[in-house]
Amino acid sequence: MKNIIIASTSTLHGSSYLEYLLPTLQSHFANCKTILFIPYARPGGISHEEYTQKVAAVFQTIAISVKGIHEFENPETAIKNAEGIFTGGGNTFLLVKQLYKNNIMQLLSETVKNGTPYLGTSAGSNICGLSMQTTNDMPIVYPPSFQTLGLISFNLNPHYLDPEENSTHMGETREERIQEYHAFNTIPVLGLREGSWLEVKGEKITLKGNLSARLFRQNQLPEELGPESDLSGLK
Amino acid sequence: MKNIIIASTSTLHGSSYLEYLLPTLQSHFANCKTILFIPYARPGGISHEEYTQKVAAVFQTIAISVKGIHEFENPETAIKNAEGIFTGGGNTFLLVKQLYKNNIMQLLSETVKNGTPYLGTSAGSNICGLSMQTTNDMPIVYPPSFQTLGLISFNLNPHYLDPEENSTHMGETREERIQEYHAFNTIPVLGLREGSWLEVKGEKITLKGNLSARLFRQNQLPEELGPESDLSGLK
Repeated sequence: MKNIIIASTSTLHGSSYLEYLLPTLQSHFANCKTILFIPYARPGGISHEEYTQKVAAVFQTIAISVKGIHEFENPETAIKNAEGIFTGGGNTFLLVKQLYKNNIMQLLSETVKNGTPYLGTSAGSNICGLSMQTTNDMPIVYPPSFQTLGLISFNLNPHYLDPEENSTHMGETREERIQEYHAFNTIPVLGLREGSWLEVKGEKITLKGNLSARLFRQNQLPEELGPESDLSGLK
Repeated sequence: MKNIIIASTSTLHGSSYLEYLLPTLQSHFANCKTILFIPYARPGGISHEEYTQKVAAVFQTIAISVKGIHEFENPETAIKNAEGIFTGGGNTFLLVKQLYKNNIMQLLSETVKNGTPYLGTSAGSNICGLSMQTTNDMPIVYPPSFQTLGLISFNLNPHYLDPEENSTHMGETREERIQEYHAFNTIPVLGLREGSWLEVKGEKITLKGNLSARLFRQNQLPEELGPESDLSGLK
């Protein structure tokens, strides 16, 4: 049975890394002594080791140890044997390229579908959809495909931002970009604001957090969905 | 001799389409009776015909007629015979995919390098760099490559936006995204603010408009370049 948390962001403004999610993570990973961390999205600034240490420091407070996938000789074995998995944020193009390069995109999908508890934040959430095509990230590397884990039957736009009133900037708003996506694709897109997350338990998908999320469907007006909305049937 | 205008945006806030550039375009296309318009970047909303009509209405005021590349049976012939070329804005992934699909990426590059006057705005400017990897656009389609025209020896970030002071949003700023690009790429990136453009005359590249531009180079602090800066040697 799928057991997944898909969070818009790891960090809320004025709060520390993963702080707002920590009570949720404690129950989510209740049966895990150790979780596997996938730091592939991080495009420099800090190393995979440092990124993993940052995650470990937080999980230590709920008595869970963390091992980075880069510490294993074989990433496939690491995923197969993981008690729980967390993919952190960064750049989605880089993350997807690395998952394909290490030949674990499909394995990760199957493993999580078979019940290994999973947490994604930001880029790690983006890959939970059918494709990464509604990411906000810059195409800093060229992945062999835009197809991702398909843990849910729609796409996500993490860090969803409402159009700024009175903006004088002429670049496209987030809503316009998602509408451009729908000129070529039928897959629904959920704009997940910072502080929101999806809880996936088996086939049940619930919007969590205090904010509403914005649902975009091809040829339909966008819709605001309140907290605790049931997204199970969405595809 | 190269003769190119690379504009951050087609439209300034509170002004009409191409209005701020019109005096410049009048001399830029002085020897053209007709220019070829490439509407490929437009991801719906308006058709290629409507987009071309919008462009034609503006160029009519400076006595230049406009023909859309979609009106030609053979896009290669259209480019070879063009007196001048304008590629409009929209989505860069879509534009690049269409240029490759129609087998005109290389031909367009050669044609403009050989002296056919060119105007790019937004996505049409992004493709003037070595790659489209510093676009702001959403990856709504999968292009066969991120390599672009290479009319200049660096990359562009059109619609460049400074970080908002006091923002509570946790998504990456534009500057952070470009720094992520430089974790994997050595090519300099010029952040071109709305209202700025590059004038390329042969090998001479000059920053035009009233604003400064922000230059990002790998492992160096960003630099502000004032109007009329000479970017000729940048690579």
